[in-house]
Amino acid sequence: MEFVQVADVKLNDPMWSRQFALVKDIVLPYMWEILNDRIEHAAKSHCIENFKVAAGKSDEKYYGVVFLDTDLYKWIEAVSYCLTVERNNELEKLCDYAIDLIKDAQLSDGYINTYYTSVAPDERWTNLMEGHELYCAGHLIEAAVAYFKATGKDQLLKISRRFADLIDQTFGKDKRRGYPGHPEIELALIRLYAVTEEKKYLELAGYFLDERGMGDNIFEEECKKEGHSYIFPEMIHFKADYFQSQVPVREQCCASGHSVRAMYLYSAMADYARLTKDQALAAACERIFDNTITRQMYVTGGVGASKLGERFTSDFDLPADSAYAETCASIGLMLFSSRMWLLNSKKTNYDIWEQALFNTVLSGMGRDGHHFFYVNPLEVVPQTINHNPTLSHVKTQRQKWFSVACCPPNLARILTSIPGYIYALDGDCLYILSHLGSSFKKGGLYVNLVRKGDAYTLTIEGGPKRVFLRLPENSELVSDQIKDHEDGYFIIQHAGGKNEYFYSLIPQIRILRAHPSVSAAAGKLCVQRGETVYCAEQVDNAKPLSALRLPVDAVFSEEKVDWLDENMPILKTVGYSVSEKNWDQTLYSSQSCVYESREITLIPYSQWGNRGENEMRVWLTEK
Amino acid sequence: MEFVQVADVKLNDPMWSRQFALVKDIVLPYMWEILNDRIEHAAKSHCIENFKVAAGKSDEKYYGVVFLDTDLYKWIEAVSYCLTVERNNELEKLCDYAIDLIKDAQLSDGYINTYYTSVAPDERWTNLMEGHELYCAGHLIEAAVAYFKATGKDQLLKISRRFADLIDQTFGKDKRRGYPGHPEIELALIRLYAVTEEKKYLELAGYFLDERGMGDNIFEEECKKEGHSYIFPEMIHFKADYFQSQVPVREQCCASGHSVRAMYLYSAMADYARLTKDQALAAACERIFDNTITRQMYVTGGVGASKLGERFTSDFDLPADSAYAETCASIGLMLFSSRMWLLNSKKTNYDIWEQALFNTVLSGMGRDGHHFFYVNPLEVVPQTINHNPTLSHVKTQRQKWFSVACCPPNLARILTSIPGYIYALDGDCLYILSHLGSSFKKGGLYVNLVRKGDAYTLTIEGGPKRVFLRLPENSELVSDQIKDHEDGYFIIQHAGGKNEYFYSLIPQIRILRAHPSVSAAAGKLCVQRGETVYCAEQVDNAKPLSALRLPVDAVFSEEKVDWLDENMPILKTVGYSVSEKNWDQTLYSSQSCVYESREITLIPYSQWGNRGENEMRVWLTEK
Repeated sequence: MEFVQVADVKLNDPMWSRQFALVKDIVLPYMWEILNDRIEHAAKSHCIENFKVAAGKSDEKYYGVVFLDTDLYKWIEAVSYCLTVERNNELEKLCDYAIDLIKDAQLSDGYINTYYTSVAPDERWTNLMEGHELYCAGHLIEAAVAYFKATGKDQLLKISRRFADLIDQTFGKDKRRGYPGHPEIELALIRLYAVTEEKKYLELAGYFLDERGMGDNIFEEECKKEGHSYIFPEMIHFKADYFQSQVPVREQCCASGHSVRAMYLYSAMADYARLTKDQALAAACERIFDNTITRQMYVTGGVGASKLGERFTSDFDLPADSAYAETCASIGLMLFSSRMWLLNSKKTNYDIWEQALFNTVLSGMGRDGHHFFYVNPLEVVPQTINHNPTLSHVKTQRQKWFSVACCPPNLARILTSIPGYIYALDGDCLYILSHLGSSFKKGGLYVNLVRKGDAYTLTIEGGPKRVFLRLPENSELVSDQIKDHEDGYFIIQHAGGKNEYFYSLIPQIRILRAHPSVSAAAGKLCVQRGETVYCAEQVDNAKPLSALRLPVDAVFSEEKVDWLDENMPILKTVGYSVSEKNWDQTLYSSQSCVYESREITLIPYSQWGNRGENEMRVWLTEK
Repeated sequence: MEFVQVADVKLNDPMWSRQFALVKDIVLPYMWEILNDRIEHAAKSHCIENFKVAAGKSDEKYYGVVFLDTDLYKWIEAVSYCLTVERNNELEKLCDYAIDLIKDAQLSDGYINTYYTSVAPDERWTNLMEGHELYCAGHLIEAAVAYFKATGKDQLLKISRRFADLIDQTFGKDKRRGYPGHPEIELALIRLYAVTEEKKYLELAGYFLDERGMGDNIFEEECKKEGHSYIFPEMIHFKADYFQSQVPVREQCCASGHSVRAMYLYSAMADYARLTKDQALAAACERIFDNTITRQMYVTGGVGASKLGERFTSDFDLPADSAYAETCASIGLMLFSSRMWLLNSKKTNYDIWEQALFNTVLSGMGRDGHHFFYVNPLEVVPQTINHNPTLSHVKTQRQKWFSVACCPPNLARILTSIPGYIYALDGDCLYILSHLGSSFKKGGLYVNLVRKGDAYTLTIEGGPKRVFLRLPENSELVSDQIKDHEDGYFIIQHAGGKNEYFYSLIPQIRILRAHPSVSAAAGKLCVQRGETVYCAEQVDNAKPLSALRLPVDAVFSEEKVDWLDENMPILKTVGYSVSEKNWDQTLYSSQSCVYESREITLIPYSQWGNRGENEMRVWLTEK
């Protein structure tokens, strides 16, 4: 079972092609300017300059967090996905320039990390918990693999292999004990193994996974060492579960700790379990995935409830206003859920993939491609956020850049890699996992999925005997030709030759409740169309949104609006709002509640905040 | 208009006498042990030791926050109120011992502050924003006034006057500019003026109030000075409004900044406006008080929504689970509201006084007198709090002591001073403000208020022509004799001689909603009996409490229980809970909600957490 890779798929979808083009034409050139510190009023990056410093080509000092190198690596990875679609001399030249810089910053033994090279050369590998050297190495490898596949140029791949070889010589049984404080290298090594077929990379990934949580905790050991100092002083309070190292990975059973670290680790575990047919590891992945999606995930596909520690907390703790729900964590959930699909081909894993993508991930970037959310709350009252320092992590509007800027380049690479998640092949079976207009040719097989509104035409030429069309959550598939279905897939028996299949995929509108233990959603309802979660914004509905009341049997009409994509209608219904009359000088009262009839307008959650600062709310109070 | 002072009133009330005795017999002796670091497993105090260090009688080092002296001062003040009721040799001897220590710690020019004397003798008055020297002086003065009134002994009064005189020589027009970062000295100086009749103390209080917010902000000036360093590094982000110094006090119009600082400042403003008949200042007090109680106060009488900064935030921002609502801030609200009553005699001010006292303040102390809440949330889910570091300020159980221990001794002094808030005299008018069983004799006047359950017998002998009985919020006053009422007071025309009046005061049970803009209470209800707010605890109701549903027309029965005072019935009604059936592996669902009929038991909010760690919730979801 494997995905048809991004390089082989051409996207041709009303919405996702626009999104892809936005990243290619706007976001990536903008980010390049950011990485070079040429955008005014944006938080300083210094990323490119740091490489120059490490290469001895600049007299400036290193600036920024220790893992800043990854901003460039993720940028190269995203550019690579764009180049697979269409060679672009300008972007490619920038990449080659950057790769030369990376090469210059590589030490003679293969080591690359601009922070350690310029600031703390004697401290290499002494702080695996916080130093992020292996994390940076992972993103370097992912960039190298993507750039090699896109262009066939192997300079960056060689650079990353030299570093991977150094890491392999350093860590392992009978060598130095270790595993990363921030997982990422594991899944990167597995990708490197896939492209190089060099087994030691898979084995090294396995070593890092297997060693984690075994025996004495290496992070605790590090902290005890003489002369140890914290890079992030707040980490002093974090325990082994923060780093997913409280017990061996095969014994873990729920999502815990820093949510991005967690998602990247679990993704690698799923990959490794599949490739090595490791049942115990696969079972751990199943347990953790179930816990994530049935106990700790926002309805928007966000994960990680607490700002402090950017972390998972406990089952059902899903506060709406103080949510963290980092963009990168939902990107991580896409990685995890798609890998879980490779592992067990359950169609529901892809429901989660779409839930994360269509809501939190898409929310991470403004429609202008120049503004980003790091934190994705489910309720925003600007007056509250702007005056309550406990909520200072929540931004009422997307930001130009961040001093810790993991999310924007991560968004760029996930959004440009979407074509690589649409199709999968397994022997003579073809899976169509997400119904995005697109086509691919591979060997004797040609597939073309043309989308017009909700209507699809699927052309298949050559190849497989059976085609599995995943039925997305909360949609109906209507077709005269395609009737059979099983376990959430519609099945086409394809006799060979060239055939056309017609179907419609009609997103349903439904009203969701949360589990009774979710305190933040008690007595509240949320509206979903297909996989898209909707929210109310003040600009369409008067404030306060806390006064809105939604009837549980509300019926919605769809309406197209200019500022949104064709497949993103807004929804309207008639509900109520609590009258503010008689509340003038009163904060609490036993007076009876006066409800006024009110049109309620909802927009896709991912699109909130594109029309200026205003209130927003996903969970509406039920009436 | 003035209160009949605590020294003149004898409490004889089923509930409040128990509370008073608890403080006198249990809390104060326990605190003495704490202040002397003799209680195991409690946070270290070091308070007494610090005085020894400053007096040159100990070789140890100063330990603790800069304002730790106030723990002892508040303890002396509380002991003083106990001694007015009944001399107690043991407590008095401890006080005298402490006073000798304070005297030894006083420098020859009158200055006292164990932190600055031992740690930073050259930095006196250089950091008014954070140094708390004037704050500590204020609590010293309040203790001295109380001890003098209780015992007639003037040693501490002399000590505090010497310090007040030094402060007066230091600060003022044509002297050093200044006002405290943490108000307290202002109201203390006004009390010192009242007992000494020395006008310069009132004028100095006036200077501190008038100077505040005028011209260049002195705190900003301090921070700019060479060599300035922060005592509390987090203060670097705090602006002038945090210290209520953004504009002159007469121009302020809403409660802002650190909530205890705010309440103490506004209390002094109300005192000063009354004593000097300052209309502009009185108007500012009215505006700020209105903003506090109609926009920024929890239904439990808590104030200050944000943990970060322990501060007021903005109108309607009243989160239930992450609430700060510090015990000291509600004590401050009692000070403010009672002073507002002296200023304008509106009966509703005393509704707020009781709302704070009967709920948040009383919640601050466990029934054993050995455990305390600093933070008073309106919703507690232990599993959430114990795993979400963003909520780490919320404790699921009362604590033995705190490293910043302002609240427990503040509770001790407010609870022992309650008798001083019951009665007020204004010419030939007597006000009975809170209906606590008690008596007093003053001049030719004898008043005895005997309470049995809800029935009261009021005996008046001699004196006043008119008696005003305040009608408490959410209660009915029933009497054959007392019928006239006006502006929330029942009025007795007392012809002189000895008379007995009979009345009953029957607490009503009502269901409250919050203003539609209070997001945290949207679609939620809260139950109040008299001034007492009720809550659900897990021990009486199965968890999760988020699944409970309260009908808006619920009818409650009252039930007495052993573990609560006679006047604190629990309440029972029939409501619903959302069934967890069909939610086994599901976090979000469009399935219809199944409600199960369920008895709901509520207890007074102030008594939660006395039966072990469990869920608690004030706002219940409406059905």
